[in-house]
Amino acid sequence: MTGDNASVTEKVMALERAVLDRWYESDSVPYSEKFTTDATYFAPGLPQRIDGPDVQKNLASFTGQIPVQRYEMINPSVDVHGDTAILTFNLVTYETEEGASEVVDRWNATEIYRHTEEGWKTVHAHWSFTQ
Amino acid sequence: MTGDNASVTEKVMALERAVLDRWYESDSVPYSEKFTTDATYFAPGLPQRIDGPDVQKNLASFTGQIPVQRYEMINPSVDVHGDTAILTFNLVTYETEEGASEVVDRWNATEIYRHTEEGWKTVHAHWSFTQ
Repeated sequence: MTGDNASVTEKVMALERAVLDRWYESDSVPYSEKFTTDATYFAPGLPQRIDGPDVQKNLASFTGQIPVQRYEMINPSVDVHGDTAILTFNLVTYETEEGASEVVDRWNATEIYRHTEEGWKTVHAHWSFTQ
Repeated sequence: MTGDNASVTEKVMALERAVLDRWYESDSVPYSEKFTTDATYFAPGLPQRIDGPDVQKNLASFTGQIPVQRYEMINPSVDVHGDTAILTFNLVTYETEEGASEVVDRWNATEIYRHTEEGWKTVHAHWSFTQ
């Protein structure tokens, strides 16, 4: 039982927001920990896809190096089918210094969740900059 | 019945290669037609995600405008779970003029397939340039 689609959507959105809140406080560990050990991952700055335990290792390494930013998740969509949920959204980040309101980055984000024995985990993610 | 994982992998890979062969001959219609009418899509050049029938419409519009290129699919991975298949790969394109061997583009590609009454269709795709 993975729950009805509305409750899955709510759960996956809450999970994603929780780890992004931490990411933009410069703690990438919670984001890294939501990946399965056989996940696949694409992001800018990587020459190619990274796979398996390298995903968690790569992501955890950013802790302390991410500039603190405010983020806005735009138009999230969750497509639930069986125990797979496809979460997609755009995301805009802003400077947080007092008086600042500049956009830092504009992202396209794909997060594929699967229901596992440990709850909903990410099996694939793909982040890119919009142009 | 969606078949065992090996046969699904083979089917999805064959579908993807068939439409990419046409895409790089400047015919985007076969690629556009493998999307469901409720699909979601991210690609460079778009300011944000596009959804639903706009995906097919957007993609079909490229016919005749895509430079003819040779492409190489690198390290494809297919993660089959129930009637969902997550296909990811890197892709490099090359000039095709005689004597040319220059790389044109380097891509990260995510294609989420779902088994439907019309066979395996794409419900989400995300393409980005590697950096």
